Amino acid sequence: MGYNTYFADALNRLHQERRYRVFAHLERLAGRYPHAIHHTPDGPRDVVVWCSNDYLGMGQHPKVVGALVETATRMGTGAGGTRNIAGTNHPLVLLEQELADLHGKEAGLVFTSGYVSNDAGISTIAKLLPNCLILSDALNHNSMITGVRNAGTDKAVWRHNDVEHLEDLLKKAGKERCKLIVFEGLYSMDGDVSPIGKICDLAEKYNAMTYIDEVHAVGMYGARGGGQAEQQGEMARIDVIEATLAKAFGCLGGYITGTKELVDAVRSFAPGFIFTTALPPGICAAATAAIKHLKESSWERERQQERAAKLKADLSAAGLPVLPTDTHIVPVMVCDAEKCKQATDILLEEHGIYIQPINYPTVPVGTERLRITPSPYHDDVLMQALTEALIDVWDRLELPRKPYSAIAAE
Amino acid sequence: MGYNTYFADALNRLHQERRYRVFAHLERLAGRYPHAIHHTPDGPRDVVVWCSNDYLGMGQHPKVVGALVETATRMGTGAGGTRNIAGTNHPLVLLEQELADLHGKEAGLVFTSGYVSNDAGISTIAKLLPNCLILSDALNHNSMITGVRNAGTDKAVWRHNDVEHLEDLLKKAGKERCKLIVFEGLYSMDGDVSPIGKICDLAEKYNAMTYIDEVHAVGMYGARGGGQAEQQGEMARIDVIEATLAKAFGCLGGYITGTKELVDAVRSFAPGFIFTTALPPGICAAATAAIKHLKESSWERERQQERAAKLKADLSAAGLPVLPTDTHIVPVMVCDAEKCKQATDILLEEHGIYIQPINYPTVPVGTERLRITPSPYHDDVLMQALTEALIDVWDRLELPRKPYSAIAAE
Ligand SMILES: Cc1ncc(COP(=O)(O)O)c(C=O)c1O
Ligand SMILES: Cc1ncc(COP(=O)(O)O)c(C=O)c1O
Repeated sequence: MGYNTYFADALNRLHQERRYRVFAHLERLAGRYPHAIHHTPDGPRDVVVWCSNDYLGMGQHPKVVGALVETATRMGTGAGGTRNIAGTNHPLVLLEQELADLHGKEAGLVFTSGYVSNDAGISTIAKLLPNCLILSDALNHNSMITGVRNAGTDKAVWRHNDVEHLEDLLKKAGKERCKLIVFEGLYSMDGDVSPIGKICDLAEKYNAMTYIDEVHAVGMYGARGGGQAEQQGEMARIDVIEATLAKAFGCLGGYITGTKELVDAVRSFAPGFIFTTALPPGICAAATAAIKHLKESSWERERQQERAAKLKADLSAAGLPVLPTDTHIVPVMVCDAEKCKQATDILLEEHGIYIQPINYPTVPVGTERLRITPSPYHDDVLMQALTEALIDVWDRLELPRKPYSAIAAE
Repeated sequence: MGYNTYFADALNRLHQERRYRVFAHLERLAGRYPHAIHHTPDGPRDVVVWCSNDYLGMGQHPKVVGALVETATRMGTGAGGTRNIAGTNHPLVLLEQELADLHGKEAGLVFTSGYVSNDAGISTIAKLLPNCLILSDALNHNSMITGVRNAGTDKAVWRHNDVEHLEDLLKKAGKERCKLIVFEGLYSMDGDVSPIGKICDLAEKYNAMTYIDEVHAVGMYGARGGGQAEQQGEMARIDVIEATLAKAFGCLGGYITGTKELVDAVRSFAPGFIFTTALPPGICAAATAAIKHLKESSWERERQQERAAKLKADLSAAGLPVLPTDTHIVPVMVCDAEKCKQATDILLEEHGIYIQPINYPTVPVGTERLRITPSPYHDDVLMQALTEALIDVWDRLELPRKPYSAIAAE
């Protein structure tokens, strides 16, 4: 197969550009999170995970694991079919009701992932609106960009969180034209939140639909874990709330919620929903258990916020360049792709700390970083060890020990 | 929201065209397959499922359920991150090795579904080949069509299983141009198989790459369950073998296998692989258990073939229009959308038999059918009941009791 050289060449280019990625091979340990096993060529080693998106450790919560185990034992492992052909299982129906309730919407619809929910959701909704213009925040996630592209409609990109720019674009499109505003509640790389109320004001003023991705906010914000829209008191004003079951809810899958008609239309028209096997009953039951628990319990959210605030304070006190954020994400800026990779290598090999380097294309060149996600289960001892390890790394790599504002100003 | 009327209108069109779908709300019972509970507005009722794609009942196999339960208990419910960021879990790495071994390839790569594996796999491979022409079988699955469309390259569609037409197109493209032939090993609606050897002959003659979808064949055909390519002795000649973990393997997820470089390139470049949470460790372990079991055990495959052959014989003897197939799928032709729906309603409500009607757009208008998938666990008593129920339905709906060849000739 002469074709193989094309693939080898593509990989060589990645190596040359230092963008080739090696995945850390991990083994999670339920009940011992954030401790895990790192499988290396030299055998298994203990590590502390500091970059998981199982933000609240719900993936190891006894209620959640218990629901999966109990349901799989009773109903088996898979759904056995697409939603239409034998795959609509009881726990999935209950999960969709739970999600609708979580967001105060009429209906919910579950997909195999958050990625698919954005791709299928955005593209199908926009296609059903005549001559729709999609207005997309510049920092939207790849899955949303894919949904926008696959809609095949006109689109306009507004500068990140810049509501004046959004208003210009809305005004230009005019009140009559169908418009869909797509944005995130919380952007996961900088940890900043969007001005949801202002966006809804504009949507009302110019008669646009709103579609929010709450992937990094559900379970984490709002009195019942409804996300940034609940936190900001704007949930009822958003037309479509999309999120994942795979981060704070600790499982797998994605969803949208909205009016009965909208959800039914996506259900009926989205190929990425129709022509694929439904989520397994056990996964649905586990996700429902996590959502139900986080509707009632604020302990995880509060403890996580306290942990994140403490970590930011500790790291800043040590002179490490923490990006100031209002949220649970703690980006520590390295601003150099090579050193970012080296830093994480030293952390993993010498300190038993696993943090994945975040480089281009996930973030812009020059803003490479360690993206740290403390959970309720990262205690003071682990935090102290992390802080000391980062100081060691910063000194050895001769990285500047000063606030990010000072570095960015240079 | 004035927008809601657009969605309501779209739904009304579906209702008018009698294409609106209602999902049967089921509860599977591990250990009692194919028996299940049907949740109706009047409460739960027992049903026998005759249309599941858990073809071999592996979703309830003690080894498979046991692997899920054991692994989830030990490692929790979710992966906790994308493959790159904390999500590459040990059972997933083992699963990819198992899949490479199953198909005799250098490497395997797991996606969240078969749908995503086709979308991401086909589009990424084609994009990495300069000026690629994709040659696609006319009856390819929606997920393959989506992958072809998202590649954004030139494409040509060859008449279903018509190797002469394929050769014309290959010849026209010329030996020098990059060409990717995409097709299925077994087409699930008609139950026919593709001439894999002949397609590989042409691929070699005209220097094209081959990509096969074995979604409905893995676990089911070949001495180790490698699919139609193994069954036909052509597995080593195919460049990319794609399939699902959600049908004969009873779980969730999809995959591709191929050379180290090809798989690494898709891993490195496919957004639908990169920007989404990895499959949960428990699901991966369950899938591995199913694959391992079906590599060693032929009982399920042989018993399923025997059951399918008996059912075809029984139904044909009763004068029901069975579409003749060489495979495990038993299509009974109704050839009328309205009666197809009525037939399944009577079966469900009066006979406790669940078969989903297969109507347009899944199959062409005029070829509406019941698609029956007997498993190793559908015994003679259940078969007798099904045959009698179908006779009742055929008589009441005044459907012709004659061979499909006679109906098609009319
Ligand atoms: C903003 C955003 N949306 C959607 C997704 C995709 O969700 P999932 O992992 O469930 O596919 C991600 C990341 O995984 C994300 O960061
Ligand atoms: C031929 C074919 N390919 C791919 C798929 C998608 O696989 P999955 O259900 O794992 O998404 C299906 C149906 O589900 C199919 O019939």
